[in-house]
Amino acid sequence: MSGRLAIVGLGPGDERYLTREAYDALQTADALYGYGPYLDRVPARQGQARHASDNREEGARAEAALRHAAAGGCAAIVSGGDPGVFAMAASVCEAIESGPQTWRSLDIAIVPGITAMLAVAARAGAPLGHDFCALSLSDNLKPWDVIERRLDAAASAGFVIAIYNPISRARPWQLGKAFALLARRLGADTPVIFGRAVGRPDENLTVATLADSGGIPADMASLIIVGSRETRVIARPGLSPLVYTPRAVEGVGA
Amino acid sequence: MSGRLAIVGLGPGDERYLTREAYDALQTADALYGYGPYLDRVPARQGQARHASDNREEGARAEAALRHAAAGGCAAIVSGGDPGVFAMAASVCEAIESGPQTWRSLDIAIVPGITAMLAVAARAGAPLGHDFCALSLSDNLKPWDVIERRLDAAASAGFVIAIYNPISRARPWQLGKAFALLARRLGADTPVIFGRAVGRPDENLTVATLADSGGIPADMASLIIVGSRETRVIARPGLSPLVYTPRAVEGVGA
Repeated sequence: MSGRLAIVGLGPGDERYLTREAYDALQTADALYGYGPYLDRVPARQGQARHASDNREEGARAEAALRHAAAGGCAAIVSGGDPGVFAMAASVCEAIESGPQTWRSLDIAIVPGITAMLAVAARAGAPLGHDFCALSLSDNLKPWDVIERRLDAAASAGFVIAIYNPISRARPWQLGKAFALLARRLGADTPVIFGRAVGRPDENLTVATLADSGGIPADMASLIIVGSRETRVIARPGLSPLVYTPRAVEGVGA
Repeated sequence: MSGRLAIVGLGPGDERYLTREAYDALQTADALYGYGPYLDRVPARQGQARHASDNREEGARAEAALRHAAAGGCAAIVSGGDPGVFAMAASVCEAIESGPQTWRSLDIAIVPGITAMLAVAARAGAPLGHDFCALSLSDNLKPWDVIERRLDAAASAGFVIAIYNPISRARPWQLGKAFALLARRLGADTPVIFGRAVGRPDENLTVATLADSGGIPADMASLIIVGSRETRVIARPGLSPLVYTPRAVEGVGA
């Protein structure tokens, strides 16, 4: 079995965020698989097949790419951000575990990328400068009460919270409910960063507080970072504020 | 004030993980600042000054680079991994907040990089495929009881845990204590991934369980990922196992 499957992180958008390893993996592949808008970011190459699919078809996409590799091909699945963070690498592992035994012998390479929370954090300052967590707000794959329990545990314990998949047409109320829960736990003046399409030409960054977060537009292209009690905002004349979480807790050490 | 300061993430080591944006920022700078071993990864360029400092001198390094930028220079601070994750971006924000007012007018750019947990996760499979947190085990900057409370909260709520700064000569017992706490909470057979120097020529990856983690060597170049109750290990004949956390909780949806 000589086939190969690479699962490649494109980073947040622009090719300036692509690593050399990701570029090489995309060049080497004879067939690309992915959600259409991600595939569109990869320059066309002659002789390279492209299989676009919907973003709800992760399982079928993983299996198609694995079948191609099992037949001796060199497949690459493209993922926005990092393939290991709420993306295709877990889907491929699930498919391998439940698939034919021969898939366990395939050469699988996961190529990391700049995940959205790192890109948004970089634009805002250093909100992830201390302990933090990353949580998907989608209740398609876990019950809402698990999400509430995790938000509560993370906020209470002092983690900054990066929220992936914050809102969609099918999930309109969850984000507001999360903000309300976090405001009770952390205080209404806790800083919140809304990053939308960061790393792309239409990028937008908004710094707000939990109290006024309900009025800030968000969609599936948004990544939201909610600060901890320690997160600070530095106002800057004529520039966007810097939001950061100090390295030390409560004045300890340094 | 025309000076500029970039805080640049080098990723885990090899230049294959460097983004184009990071490469350009390093090229543009007329003075580089950083921990010696990180500076050593950046190819020398004529006319570019280099200021190496110890890894305990983050505050002084940030101030030196800010002074250079305030004098009209083009400074770059290099950081391993991502500058926003337990690294230099927070130190620079701290220095700006407590420094002269003029520093708030400087052009500050934070250039994200592949942080260690993404590199280690990619080598292992998809352990961060579901909700996760990142926590520094160093009790230099926060009390040990805060660390224990966070480990407990994160494990109880179902987050996979990426442990940065797991152990050092000055902090020899904390990691063992963390493993013992997590084993009580999660079960002794919970998967643990030890990644050392991942992305560099001497990289090493070990998959163990909480029960046998005490016997696995670790140091400051290690990044450790402790699974949740949902994390799974797929054995592969002749290949290292794939460790992943399914996207769905307890058989929900898909």
